[in-house]
Amino acid sequence: MRILYHHPLCPFSRLVRVVMAEKKLEFEPQIEKFWERRADFTALNAAGEVPVLVEEGGTVLADAVAIAEYLDEVHREPPLLPSDPLARAEVRRLVGWFGAKFFAEVTTNLVGEKVFKRLSAQHGEPDSRKIRAGFANIHEHLNYIGWLTERRAWLGGSAFTLADIAAAAQVSTIDYLGDVPWDNHPGAKDWYARVKSRPSFRVLLSDHLPGVPPPRHYADLDF
Amino acid sequence: MRILYHHPLCPFSRLVRVVMAEKKLEFEPQIEKFWERRADFTALNAAGEVPVLVEEGGTVLADAVAIAEYLDEVHREPPLLPSDPLARAEVRRLVGWFGAKFFAEVTTNLVGEKVFKRLSAQHGEPDSRKIRAGFANIHEHLNYIGWLTERRAWLGGSAFTLADIAAAAQVSTIDYLGDVPWDNHPGAKDWYARVKSRPSFRVLLSDHLPGVPPPRHYADLDF
Repeated sequence: MRILYHHPLCPFSRLVRVVMAEKKLEFEPQIEKFWERRADFTALNAAGEVPVLVEEGGTVLADAVAIAEYLDEVHREPPLLPSDPLARAEVRRLVGWFGAKFFAEVTTNLVGEKVFKRLSAQHGEPDSRKIRAGFANIHEHLNYIGWLTERRAWLGGSAFTLADIAAAAQVSTIDYLGDVPWDNHPGAKDWYARVKSRPSFRVLLSDHLPGVPPPRHYADLDF
Repeated sequence: MRILYHHPLCPFSRLVRVVMAEKKLEFEPQIEKFWERRADFTALNAAGEVPVLVEEGGTVLADAVAIAEYLDEVHREPPLLPSDPLARAEVRRLVGWFGAKFFAEVTTNLVGEKVFKRLSAQHGEPDSRKIRAGFANIHEHLNYIGWLTERRAWLGGSAFTLADIAAAAQVSTIDYLGDVPWDNHPGAKDWYARVKSRPSFRVLLSDHLPGVPPPRHYADLDF
Protein backbone atom coordinates (compact mmCIF):
# COMPACT_ATOMS: atom_id res chain seq x y z
CA MET A 1 0.00 0.00 0.00
CA ARG A 2 1.13 3.57 -0.56
CA ILE A 3 2.69 5.30 2.43
CA LEU A 4 2.28 8.93 3.42
CA TYR A 5 4.93 10.37 5.69
CA HIS A 6 3.29 13.26 7.48
CA HIS A 7 2.92 15.12 10.75
CA PRO A 8 -0.48 15.77 12.35
CA LEU A 9 0.09 19.51 12.81
CA CYS A 10 1.89 20.11 9.51
CA PRO A 11 -0.54 22.07 7.30
CA PHE A 12 1.02 20.76 4.09
CA SER A 13 0.61 17.17 5.27
CA ARG A 14 -3.01 17.97 6.09
CA LEU A 15 -3.57 19.26 2.57
CA VAL A 16 -2.44 15.94 1.08
CA ARG A 17 -4.38 13.88 3.63
CA VAL A 18 -7.61 15.66 2.69
CA VAL A 19 -6.90 15.35 -1.04
CA MET A 20 -6.42 11.60 -0.62
CA ALA A 21 -9.59 11.32 1.45
CA GLU A 22 -11.57 13.29 -1.18
CA LYS A 23 -10.35 10.85 -3.82
CA LYS A 24 -10.86 7.85 -1.54
CA LEU A 25 -7.27 6.71 -1.91
CA GLU A 26 -6.07 4.37 0.79
CA PHE A 27 -2.68 4.89 2.35
CA GLU A 28 -0.67 3.92 5.38
CA PRO A 29 0.04 7.06 7.42
CA GLN A 30 3.49 7.31 9.00
CA ILE A 31 4.15 10.12 11.42
CA GLU A 32 7.57 11.57 10.69
CA LYS A 33 9.42 13.72 13.22
CA PHE A 34 10.98 15.56 10.31
CA TRP A 35 13.02 17.88 12.55
CA GLU A 36 15.14 14.87 13.58
CA ARG A 37 16.36 14.64 9.97
CA ARG A 38 16.39 10.84 9.98
CA ALA A 39 18.78 9.66 7.25
CA ASP A 40 16.29 7.24 5.68
CA PHE A 41 13.79 10.06 5.45
CA THR A 42 16.09 12.69 3.97
CA ALA A 43 17.06 10.04 1.43
CA LEU A 44 13.39 10.11 0.34
CA ASN A 45 13.16 13.90 0.36
CA ALA A 46 16.35 15.93 0.37
CA ALA A 47 14.34 18.91 1.65
CA GLY A 48 13.76 16.93 4.85
CA GLU A 49 10.13 18.02 4.91
CA VAL A 50 6.77 16.32 5.13
CA PRO A 51 4.59 15.32 3.35
CA VAL A 52 6.26 12.59 1.30
CA LEU A 53 4.18 10.07 -0.61
CA VAL A 54 5.64 6.71 -1.54
CA GLU A 55 3.49 5.04 -4.16
CA GLU A 56 3.08 1.31 -4.45
CA GLY A 57 6.12 0.27 -6.43
CA GLY A 58 8.30 2.76 -4.59
CA THR A 59 7.92 5.99 -6.57
CA VAL A 60 8.57 8.89 -4.21
CA LEU A 61 6.75 12.23 -4.40
CA ALA A 62 7.39 15.28 -2.27
CA ASP A 63 6.00 18.82 -1.91
CA ALA A 64 2.32 19.12 -1.02
CA VAL A 65 1.28 21.00 -4.15
CA ALA A 66 3.23 18.68 -6.45
CA ILE A 67 1.58 15.67 -4.77
CA ALA A 68 -1.89 17.22 -4.92
CA GLU A 69 -1.58 18.17 -8.59
CA TYR A 70 -0.26 14.68 -9.37
CA LEU A 71 -3.12 12.96 -7.54
CA ASP A 72 -5.62 15.22 -9.31
CA GLU A 73 -4.14 14.34 -12.70
CA VAL A 74 -4.01 10.58 -12.10
CA HIS A 75 -7.16 10.08 -10.01
CA ARG A 76 -9.64 12.42 -11.63
CA GLU A 77 -12.70 12.03 -9.40
CA PRO A 78 -13.70 14.25 -7.80
CA PRO A 79 -11.73 16.95 -9.64
CA LEU A 80 -10.09 19.40 -7.24
CA LEU A 81 -9.06 21.85 -9.95
CA PRO A 82 -11.56 23.27 -12.46
CA SER A 83 -11.10 22.48 -16.16
CA ASP A 84 -10.96 26.09 -17.41
CA PRO A 85 -7.39 27.51 -17.37
CA LEU A 86 -8.41 30.85 -15.86
CA ALA A 87 -10.42 29.15 -13.15
CA ARG A 88 -7.46 26.86 -12.46
CA ALA A 89 -5.21 29.92 -12.16
CA GLU A 90 -7.56 31.40 -9.58
CA VAL A 91 -7.51 28.20 -7.52
CA ARG A 92 -3.72 28.03 -7.76
CA ARG A 93 -3.41 31.70 -6.75
CA LEU A 94 -5.24 30.87 -3.53
CA VAL A 95 -3.27 27.67 -2.97
CA GLY A 96 -0.18 29.87 -3.21
CA TRP A 97 -1.71 32.49 -0.88
CA PHE A 98 -2.37 30.03 1.91
CA GLY A 99 0.77 27.96 1.39
CA ALA A 100 3.09 30.96 1.38
CA LYS A 101 1.45 34.08 2.83
CA PHE A 102 -0.85 32.56 5.47
CA PHE A 103 1.85 30.04 6.40
CA ALA A 104 4.54 32.72 6.82
CA GLU A 105 2.35 35.31 8.52
CA VAL A 106 0.21 33.08 10.73
CA THR A 107 1.06 29.36 10.89
CA THR A 108 4.79 29.63 11.51
CA ASN A 109 4.19 32.33 14.12
CA LEU A 110 1.61 30.30 16.05
CA VAL A 111 2.03 26.58 15.33
CA GLY A 112 5.74 26.98 14.63
CA GLU A 113 6.45 28.83 17.85
CA LYS A 114 4.02 27.05 20.16
CA VAL A 115 4.35 23.47 18.93
CA PHE A 116 7.23 22.72 16.59
CA LYS A 117 9.79 24.79 18.48
CA ARG A 118 8.96 22.76 21.58
CA LEU A 119 8.83 19.42 19.80
CA SER A 120 12.12 19.97 18.08
CA ALA A 121 13.66 21.45 21.25
CA GLN A 122 15.49 23.96 19.08
CA HIS A 123 16.01 27.68 19.10
CA GLY A 124 14.98 28.11 22.74
CA GLU A 125 11.68 29.44 24.02
CA PRO A 126 8.70 30.46 21.89
CA ASP A 127 9.15 34.04 20.72
CA SER A 128 6.28 36.09 22.16
CA ARG A 129 6.70 38.78 19.49
CA LYS A 130 6.13 36.21 16.78
CA ILE A 131 3.10 34.82 18.58
CA ARG A 132 1.65 38.32 18.84
CA ALA A 133 2.34 38.87 15.14
CA GLY A 134 0.51 35.63 14.31
CA PHE A 135 -2.53 36.72 16.32
CA ALA A 136 -2.47 40.14 14.64
CA ASN A 137 -2.03 38.77 11.13
CA ILE A 138 -4.78 36.14 11.21
CA HIS A 139 -7.54 38.76 11.03
CA GLU A 140 -6.58 39.94 7.53
CA HIS A 141 -6.73 36.36 6.28
CA LEU A 142 -10.06 35.54 7.92
CA ASN A 143 -11.45 38.79 6.52
CA TYR A 144 -10.26 37.74 3.09
CA ILE A 145 -11.93 34.34 3.42
CA GLY A 146 -15.12 36.14 4.43
CA TRP A 147 -14.81 38.56 1.51
CA LEU A 148 -14.33 35.73 -0.98
CA THR A 149 -17.24 33.66 0.33
CA GLU A 150 -19.58 36.65 0.11
CA ARG A 151 -18.93 36.53 -3.63
CA ARG A 152 -18.57 32.81 -4.30
CA ALA A 153 -19.84 29.52 -2.93
CA TRP A 154 -16.31 28.35 -2.19
CA LEU A 155 -12.95 30.14 -2.03
CA GLY A 156 -11.83 29.43 -5.58
CA GLY A 157 -15.21 29.68 -7.30
CA SER A 158 -18.52 27.84 -7.46
CA ALA A 159 -17.05 24.43 -6.57
CA PHE A 160 -15.08 23.01 -3.65
CA THR A 161 -11.46 22.90 -4.83
CA LEU A 162 -7.87 22.59 -3.77
CA ALA A 163 -8.09 26.26 -2.71
CA ASP A 164 -10.50 25.33 0.09
CA ILE A 165 -8.33 22.39 1.09
CA ALA A 166 -5.15 24.48 1.14
CA ALA A 167 -6.82 27.18 3.23
CA ALA A 168 -8.52 24.79 5.64
CA ALA A 169 -5.31 22.80 6.05
CA GLN A 170 -3.60 25.92 7.41
CA VAL A 171 -6.56 27.24 9.39
CA SER A 172 -7.20 23.84 11.00
CA THR A 173 -3.73 23.77 12.57
CA ILE A 174 -4.46 27.14 14.22
CA ASP A 175 -7.86 25.86 15.28
CA TYR A 176 -6.17 22.84 16.88
CA LEU A 177 -4.46 25.34 19.18
CA GLY A 178 -7.77 27.11 19.85
CA ASP A 179 -6.29 30.30 18.39
CA VAL A 180 -8.79 31.19 15.65
CA PRO A 181 -10.90 34.22 16.65
CA TRP A 182 -14.08 32.77 15.14
CA ASP A 183 -16.45 35.14 16.92
CA ASN A 184 -15.08 38.11 14.96
CA HIS A 185 -15.28 36.35 11.61
CA PRO A 186 -18.71 34.87 10.92
CA GLY A 187 -18.11 34.56 7.17
CA ALA A 188 -14.91 32.57 7.61
CA LYS A 189 -16.57 30.52 10.33
CA ASP A 190 -19.47 29.59 8.06
CA TRP A 191 -17.05 28.54 5.32
CA TYR A 192 -14.94 26.49 7.75
CA ALA A 193 -18.05 24.78 9.14
CA ARG A 194 -18.91 23.67 5.62
CA VAL A 195 -15.38 22.36 5.00
CA LYS A 196 -15.34 20.63 8.39
CA SER A 197 -18.56 18.78 7.66
CA ARG A 198 -17.10 17.07 4.60
CA PRO A 199 -16.27 13.41 5.19
CA SER A 200 -12.75 14.02 3.87
CA PHE A 201 -12.05 16.32 6.78
CA ARG A 202 -12.91 13.81 9.51
CA VAL A 203 -9.44 12.31 9.50
CA LEU A 204 -7.99 15.67 10.63
CA LEU A 205 -10.59 16.14 13.33
CA SER A 206 -9.54 12.93 15.06
CA ASP A 207 -5.88 14.01 15.25
CA HIS A 208 -4.53 14.05 18.77
CA LEU A 209 -0.96 15.04 19.47
CA PRO A 210 0.37 13.65 22.78
CA GLY A 211 0.92 16.49 25.22
CA VAL A 212 -0.89 18.98 22.95
CA PRO A 213 -4.61 18.13 23.23
CA PRO A 214 -6.99 20.10 20.97
CA PRO A 215 -9.68 22.34 22.48
CA ARG A 216 -13.14 20.83 22.87
CA HIS A 217 -14.61 22.68 19.86
CA TYR A 218 -11.90 21.42 17.49
CA ALA A 219 -13.76 18.33 16.30
CA ASP A 220 -17.21 19.85 16.87
CA LEU A 221 -19.06 20.41 13.60
CA ASP A 222 -21.28 22.98 15.32
CA PHE A 223 -18.54 25.09 16.94
CA MET B 1 -1.25 44.62 -24.82
CA ARG B 2 -0.96 42.51 -21.68
CA ILE B 3 0.77 44.19 -18.75
CA LEU B 4 3.10 42.54 -16.26
CA TYR B 5 3.55 44.31 -12.95
CA HIS B 6 6.92 43.19 -11.65
CA HIS B 7 10.07 44.21 -9.85
CA PRO B 8 13.53 43.62 -11.37
CA LEU B 9 14.95 41.93 -8.26
CA CYS B 10 11.82 39.96 -7.36
CA PRO B 11 12.61 36.28 -8.13
CA PHE B 12 8.94 35.42 -8.69
CA SER B 13 8.60 38.24 -11.22
CA ARG B 14 11.73 36.93 -12.93
CA LEU B 15 10.19 33.48 -13.20
CA VAL B 16 7.18 34.86 -15.08
CA ARG B 17 9.32 37.13 -17.28
CA VAL B 18 11.39 34.15 -18.43
CA VAL B 19 8.29 31.99 -18.99
CA MET B 20 6.83 34.73 -21.20
CA ALA B 21 10.09 35.11 -23.08
CA GLU B 22 10.31 31.32 -23.64
CA LYS B 23 6.81 31.42 -25.11
CA LYS B 24 7.52 34.61 -27.05
CA LEU B 25 4.57 36.42 -25.49
CA GLU B 26 4.75 40.18 -25.71
CA PHE B 27 3.90 42.29 -22.70
CA GLU B 28 4.33 45.76 -21.35
CA PRO B 29 6.48 45.60 -18.21
CA GLN B 30 5.50 47.89 -15.35
CA ILE B 31 7.84 48.15 -12.39
CA GLU B 32 5.77 48.11 -9.21
CA LYS B 33 7.16 49.30 -5.89
CA PHE B 34 4.94 46.77 -4.20
CA TRP B 35 6.10 47.76 -0.68
CA GLU B 36 4.30 51.08 -1.14
CA ARG B 37 0.99 49.17 -1.26
CA ARG B 38 -0.50 51.48 -3.89
CA ALA B 39 -4.28 51.19 -3.70
CA ASP B 40 -4.74 50.59 -7.43
CA PHE B 41 -2.25 47.75 -7.21
CA THR B 42 -3.66 46.02 -4.14
CA ALA B 43 -7.03 46.21 -5.91
CA LEU B 44 -5.46 43.99 -8.59
CA ASN B 45 -3.83 41.64 -6.09
CA ALA B 46 -5.01 41.67 -2.50
CA ALA B 47 -1.74 40.00 -1.51
CA GLY B 48 0.02 43.21 -2.57
CA GLU B 49 2.76 41.17 -4.25
CA VAL B 50 4.34 41.04 -7.69
CA PRO B 51 4.09 39.55 -10.26
CA VAL B 52 0.61 40.41 -11.48
CA LEU B 53 -0.36 39.77 -15.08
CA VAL B 54 -3.22 41.71 -16.66
CA GLU B 55 -4.30 40.03 -19.86
CA GLU B 56 -5.71 41.91 -22.81
CA GLY B 57 -9.35 42.35 -21.92
CA GLY B 58 -8.49 42.98 -18.29
CA THR B 59 -8.33 39.50 -16.73
CA VAL B 60 -6.00 39.65 -13.73
CA LEU B 61 -3.71 36.82 -12.67
CA ALA B 62 -1.48 36.72 -9.62
CA ASP B 63 1.01 34.30 -8.01
CA ALA B 64 4.01 33.33 -10.11
CA VAL B 65 3.28 29.61 -10.18
CA ALA B 66 -0.40 30.15 -10.99
CA ILE B 67 0.59 32.49 -13.84
CA ALA B 68 3.26 30.11 -15.15
CA GLU B 69 0.94 27.09 -15.10
CA TYR B 70 -1.76 29.16 -16.82
CA LEU B 71 0.59 30.35 -19.54
CA ASP B 72 1.84 26.79 -20.05
CA GLU B 73 -1.73 25.52 -20.43
CA VAL B 74 -2.86 28.23 -22.84
CA HIS B 75 0.33 28.77 -24.86
CA ARG B 76 1.70 25.27 -25.27
CA GLU B 77 4.96 25.87 -27.13
CA PRO B 78 7.52 25.28 -25.88
CA PRO B 79 6.10 23.15 -23.07
CA LEU B 80 7.65 24.00 -19.71
CA LEU B 81 6.13 21.04 -17.90
CA PRO B 82 6.53 17.46 -19.16
CA SER B 83 3.43 15.52 -20.21
CA ASP B 84 3.89 12.52 -17.88
CA PRO B 85 2.24 13.09 -14.46
CA LEU B 86 5.20 11.74 -12.47
CA ALA B 87 7.65 13.88 -14.43
CA ARG B 88 5.38 16.88 -13.86
CA ALA B 89 5.36 16.14 -10.13
CA GLU B 90 9.15 16.14 -10.11
CA VAL B 91 9.27 19.52 -11.86
CA ARG B 92 6.68 20.93 -9.47
CA ARG B 93 8.61 19.56 -6.46
CA LEU B 94 11.61 21.61 -7.56
CA VAL B 95 9.52 24.69 -8.35
CA GLY B 96 8.30 24.39 -4.76
CA TRP B 97 11.84 23.85 -3.45
CA PHE B 98 13.19 27.04 -4.99
CA GLY B 99 10.07 29.12 -4.43
CA ALA B 100 9.78 28.22 -0.75
CA LYS B 101 13.00 26.73 0.64
CA PHE B 102 15.62 28.61 -1.40
CA PHE B 103 13.60 31.80 -1.13
CA ALA B 104 13.25 31.55 2.67
CA GLU B 105 16.78 30.33 3.36
CA VAL B 106 18.75 32.38 0.85
CA THR B 107 16.88 35.05 -1.15
CA THR B 108 15.08 36.77 1.73
CA ASN B 109 18.28 36.75 3.77
CA LEU B 110 20.40 38.31 1.04
CA VAL B 111 18.20 40.21 -1.44
CA GLY B 112 15.57 40.91 1.20
CA GLU B 113 18.05 42.34 3.70
CA LYS B 114 20.42 44.08 1.30
CA VAL B 115 18.00 45.49 -1.25
CA PHE B 116 14.31 45.43 -0.34
CA LYS B 117 14.81 46.49 3.26
CA ARG B 118 16.64 49.57 1.97
CA LEU B 119 14.20 50.29 -0.85
CA SER B 120 11.20 50.04 1.39
CA ALA B 121 12.97 51.96 4.17
CA GLN B 122 11.34 49.67 6.69
CA HIS B 123 12.47 47.64 9.67
CA GLY B 124 15.76 49.50 10.08
CA GLU B 125 19.20 48.32 9.05
CA PRO B 126 20.02 45.05 7.25
CA ASP B 127 20.33 42.25 9.82
CA SER B 128 23.89 40.92 9.63
CA ARG B 129 22.87 37.60 11.20
CA LYS B 130 20.38 37.03 8.40
CA ILE B 131 22.95 37.95 5.77
CA ARG B 132 25.40 35.46 7.30
CA ALA B 133 22.66 32.83 7.34
CA GLY B 134 21.97 33.47 3.65
CA PHE B 135 25.67 33.03 2.79
CA ALA B 136 25.82 29.84 4.85
CA ASN B 137 22.62 28.37 3.40
CA ILE B 138 23.37 28.94 -0.28
CA HIS B 139 25.98 26.16 -0.36
CA GLU B 140 23.46 23.39 0.33
CA HIS B 141 21.32 24.62 -2.54
CA LEU B 142 24.18 24.96 -5.01
CA ASN B 143 25.37 21.48 -3.99
CA TYR B 144 21.89 20.17 -4.68
CA ILE B 145 21.84 21.79 -8.12
CA GLY B 146 25.21 20.18 -8.80
CA TRP B 147 23.99 16.81 -7.53
CA LEU B 148 20.90 16.95 -9.75
CA THR B 149 22.78 17.97 -12.88
CA GLU B 150 25.26 15.13 -12.43
CA ARG B 151 22.28 12.83 -12.90
CA ARG B 152 20.14 14.73 -15.41
CA ALA B 153 20.60 17.17 -18.28
CA TRP B 154 18.44 19.76 -16.52
CA LEU B 155 17.15 20.10 -12.96
CA GLY B 156 13.77 18.46 -13.50
CA GLY B 157 14.84 15.79 -15.99
CA SER B 158 16.06 15.50 -19.56
CA ALA B 159 14.42 18.75 -20.75
CA PHE B 160 14.61 22.41 -19.76
CA THR B 161 11.50 23.06 -17.64
CA LEU B 162 9.86 25.38 -15.19
CA ALA B 163 12.16 23.83 -12.54
CA ASP B 164 15.19 25.41 -14.20
CA ILE B 165 13.38 28.72 -14.57
CA ALA B 166 12.25 28.74 -10.92
CA ALA B 167 15.76 27.93 -9.71
CA ALA B 168 17.52 30.38 -12.01
CA ALA B 169 15.02 33.11 -11.13
CA GLN B 170 16.09 32.86 -7.48
CA VAL B 171 19.80 32.31 -8.13
CA SER B 172 19.96 35.22 -10.59
CA THR B 173 18.84 37.72 -7.93
CA ILE B 174 21.71 36.57 -5.70
CA ASP B 175 24.06 36.76 -8.66
CA TYR B 176 22.92 40.34 -9.28
CA LEU B 177 24.40 41.12 -5.85
CA GLY B 178 27.59 39.23 -6.73
CA ASP B 179 26.92 36.88 -3.81
CA VAL B 180 26.95 33.46 -5.50
CA PRO B 181 30.13 31.52 -4.57
CA TRP B 182 30.51 30.10 -8.07
CA ASP B 183 34.12 28.99 -7.62
CA ASN B 184 33.10 26.37 -5.05
CA HIS B 185 30.27 25.00 -7.15
CA PRO B 186 31.37 24.10 -10.68
CA GLY B 187 28.33 21.88 -11.32
CA ALA B 188 25.86 24.63 -10.45
CA LYS B 189 27.95 27.12 -12.39
CA ASP B 190 27.85 24.96 -15.52
CA TRP B 191 24.07 24.61 -15.24
CA TYR B 192 23.62 28.36 -14.70
CA ALA B 193 25.83 29.15 -17.69
CA ARG B 194 23.55 27.00 -19.83
CA VAL B 195 20.42 28.73 -18.50
CA LYS B 196 22.01 32.15 -18.93
CA SER B 197 22.81 31.51 -22.58
CA ARG B 198 19.16 30.96 -23.47
CA PRO B 199 17.60 33.90 -25.35
CA SER B 200 14.74 33.97 -22.80
CA PHE B 201 17.19 34.90 -20.06
CA ARG B 202 18.61 37.97 -21.81
CA VAL B 203 15.86 40.21 -20.50
CA LEU B 204 17.02 39.55 -16.92
CA LEU B 205 20.66 40.15 -17.76
CA SER B 206 19.93 43.70 -18.91
CA ASP B 207 18.21 44.60 -15.63
CA HIS B 208 19.77 47.55 -13.89
CA LEU B 209 18.39 48.84 -10.63
CA PRO B 210 19.27 52.51 -9.96
CA GLY B 211 21.71 52.72 -7.06
CA VAL B 212 22.27 48.97 -7.06
CA PRO B 213 24.43 48.20 -10.11
CA PRO B 214 25.14 44.53 -10.84
CA PRO B 215 28.72 43.21 -10.77
CA ARG B 216 30.55 43.03 -14.09
CA HIS B 217 30.14 39.24 -14.46
CA TYR B 218 26.34 39.40 -14.02
CA ALA B 219 25.51 39.68 -17.72
CA ASP B 220 28.62 37.82 -18.85
CA LEU B 221 27.79 34.47 -20.45
CA ASP B 222 31.33 33.27 -19.78
CA PHE B 223 31.55 34.21 -16.10
